[in-house]
Amino acid sequence: QIDSARLWGSIHETAQFGATAKGGVRRLTLSSEDKQVRDWFRQACEDAGLEVHTDALGSQFGLRKGRDMSKPPVGIGSHLDTQPTGGKYDGILGTLGALEVIRTLNDAGVETEAPICVVNWTNEEGSRFAPAMMASAAYVGDFTTDDILSRKDAEGTTVGQALDSIGYRGDKPVGFQKLGCFVELHIEQGPILEAEGKTIGVVDSGQGVLWYDGKISGFESHAGSTPMPLRRDALATLSEIVLAMESIAKKLGPNAVGTIGEAVIANPSRNVIPGEIAFTMDCRSADGAIMDALDRDLRAAIAEIAARRKVEVKIDLVWRKPPTHFDPKLISAVENAAKTLGYSSRRITSGAGHDACNLNTIMPAAMVFVPCKDGISHNELEDATQPDCTAGTNVLMHTVLAIAGV
Amino acid sequence: QIDSARLWGSIHETAQFGATAKGGVRRLTLSSEDKQVRDWFRQACEDAGLEVHTDALGSQFGLRKGRDMSKPPVGIGSHLDTQPTGGKYDGILGTLGALEVIRTLNDAGVETEAPICVVNWTNEEGSRFAPAMMASAAYVGDFTTDDILSRKDAEGTTVGQALDSIGYRGDKPVGFQKLGCFVELHIEQGPILEAEGKTIGVVDSGQGVLWYDGKISGFESHAGSTPMPLRRDALATLSEIVLAMESIAKKLGPNAVGTIGEAVIANPSRNVIPGEIAFTMDCRSADGAIMDALDRDLRAAIAEIAARRKVEVKIDLVWRKPPTHFDPKLISAVENAAKTLGYSSRRITSGAGHDACNLNTIMPAAMVFVPCKDGISHNELEDATQPDCTAGTNVLMHTVLAIAGV
Ligand SMILES: NC(=O)NCCC(=O)O
Ligand SMILES: NC(=O)NCCC(=O)O
Repeated sequence: QIDSARLWGSIHETAQFGATAKGGVRRLTLSSEDKQVRDWFRQACEDAGLEVHTDALGSQFGLRKGRDMSKPPVGIGSHLDTQPTGGKYDGILGTLGALEVIRTLNDAGVETEAPICVVNWTNEEGSRFAPAMMASAAYVGDFTTDDILSRKDAEGTTVGQALDSIGYRGDKPVGFQKLGCFVELHIEQGPILEAEGKTIGVVDSGQGVLWYDGKISGFESHAGSTPMPLRRDALATLSEIVLAMESIAKKLGPNAVGTIGEAVIANPSRNVIPGEIAFTMDCRSADGAIMDALDRDLRAAIAEIAARRKVEVKIDLVWRKPPTHFDPKLISAVENAAKTLGYSSRRITSGAGHDACNLNTIMPAAMVFVPCKDGISHNELEDATQPDCTAGTNVLMHTVLAIAGV
Repeated sequence: QIDSARLWGSIHETAQFGATAKGGVRRLTLSSEDKQVRDWFRQACEDAGLEVHTDALGSQFGLRKGRDMSKPPVGIGSHLDTQPTGGKYDGILGTLGALEVIRTLNDAGVETEAPICVVNWTNEEGSRFAPAMMASAAYVGDFTTDDILSRKDAEGTTVGQALDSIGYRGDKPVGFQKLGCFVELHIEQGPILEAEGKTIGVVDSGQGVLWYDGKISGFESHAGSTPMPLRRDALATLSEIVLAMESIAKKLGPNAVGTIGEAVIANPSRNVIPGEIAFTMDCRSADGAIMDALDRDLRAAIAEIAARRKVEVKIDLVWRKPPTHFDPKLISAVENAAKTLGYSSRRITSGAGHDACNLNTIMPAAMVFVPCKDGISHNELEDATQPDCTAGTNVLMHTVLAIAGV
């Protein structure tokens, strides 16, 4: 059994780095708040006897030796960055839960056969730099390190510059730390476990993701003197796209979602019809065929709207992540750990993307979910109970022990 | 006849202050570019022998003596500020046309009975500070000087601070310069004169304006894990409001327009459902009953959308300007000047607001319109021909001579 009070203390101690007035955390990746939490995490790992290294994209790896160092380590962890309006648990529970597993094993004097490696992945959220789960994607070879280093945020700062500015461009090449498998603990970020009164979600799959950058070019003109039928209004165009995406996702059933999270009018003015808007789109499904339908229906709807309104709409697919099917043996290991510990559980699909989804493409991976209040996440009101977080960390520990061998 | 080349030269010389790559002008009120054009204008007025004063809101008044100084001056002029994506003619033609009238009378040695006063009104555009036509509204007593001085732009800078920062908080109280009437020359900013091949628009009325500030409060949540039916999406709400406004304005006929020009998502992120949006609305009609219908139908539509989507939408009416009916005698004076000079003309309603509309509430006022290319305004591509601008300035001069007496 892990030390529940110590886990809870770590979560609330680090929540000071980027704490918001509404009780959430604003800790964008590679910001000064992210540096603070990284410093804290490195120190805590070293204090727990781990050998800590940072790779060229800033991901932190803390290694605990095993009896058989020829065996690849069991990877555990998540991320410490948050959304602009983020909560205290998303990613943080999984990273500090992994640290708590190490501390508990240390206290109990437990040595494992295979080594264990605790990881804090850079930029899981994808809010400042696209795509999400950036560093783990580079780790599995989906992108080159140089490609990722040159990605820019809205201010034009590159990942490389941001890493240097907080001193976290590590000296190890991406992929230096081999892992045998990866297990990630996370809050569900959805309403199912809470609604069904289950403590543990055994994650067997994850939604695929489509991310697009869009740009609408209409025509700026006078709000007072331009007759309604002559307008080429970029905001009215965007509005039709937003509602078309909503109805396409609804029509495709409960296994599809679509969101426009960002939209910026160029040179806005009260009495000027918007002429240019940049926006982003996020579409997801756990079913590849539905992802294809989302893409096709959305493009068709946008083409029709643009032609009818005589505006230009450009759509760029900037990221496509296929649905994830986690490793059957690891899924069973998580399920057995929950059963052994006496927690109620159910199989579940992840609505969110996770670093474990990337790692699953080159090694066995799995995830442990715990309930979160009203399914709320990416919101400062995100909440989870101490007993549930403790339960999830215990399941993580017992899963690791089963895989690593005692 | 005015000096066409000199007028054209002034327009293009001052267009350097805030010139944009696309051939337009970006000269927001009380910006450093506005200071540059004000300095140029003051010098030009002084060189033309005018006595120049600035009032407490930065409006510039250049007085040309008349034979009978007991008579109130005939006011002419417009504004030198522009939209963020503004053109070279909106306001500028009317201000530099007024200067050209003075220069022509000087060259011809013409003395008038009543004095003539050239005016550059502060913040006609209303883009940086609301409302539009701010200084002339204070001049006619719609707002107190202190109220206007405390208005803030999006960065929180007040009108008072902005005036001080460019050294244009004048020493004269607002209203210090009495005027007997006001005549404003302007580009039409609409397509009618060009379409009908008429050179002069004799403006007999102006649309009323409703300006609102709006705020939508939905709920931020995860783009991947929040099912479509559970969302309280602020952007989807705004989208319905945009399209409702469009269809309400269309339904009320050609004599109604409605625009949402500004909309800002708070803490935007690709994978977060927008929770909060601030926006503005601009509705207009030349018919008071239609203005009332716009307000009523819009509020009803917004209430229905907000209730159905379970979000809060707050709407504040921040400005209401009733329709304008210009002075019949001055309208005839403009019409006669056009006829005498041999220009084709027609009566016309102004779609845009103008300082002359404010002045008309306390003195006789009128306006002279000239065509602009494709009716385009509040756009960097705004254009007007030299012969049309010259014709309008001639009509302005002959109207002034008829009113002031030679
Ligand atoms: N877990 C999580 O919120 N990840 C952010 C990436 C995503 O949008 O799914
Ligand atoms: N003439 C002009 O464009 N005025 C700006 C105020 C308005 O929006 O009508």
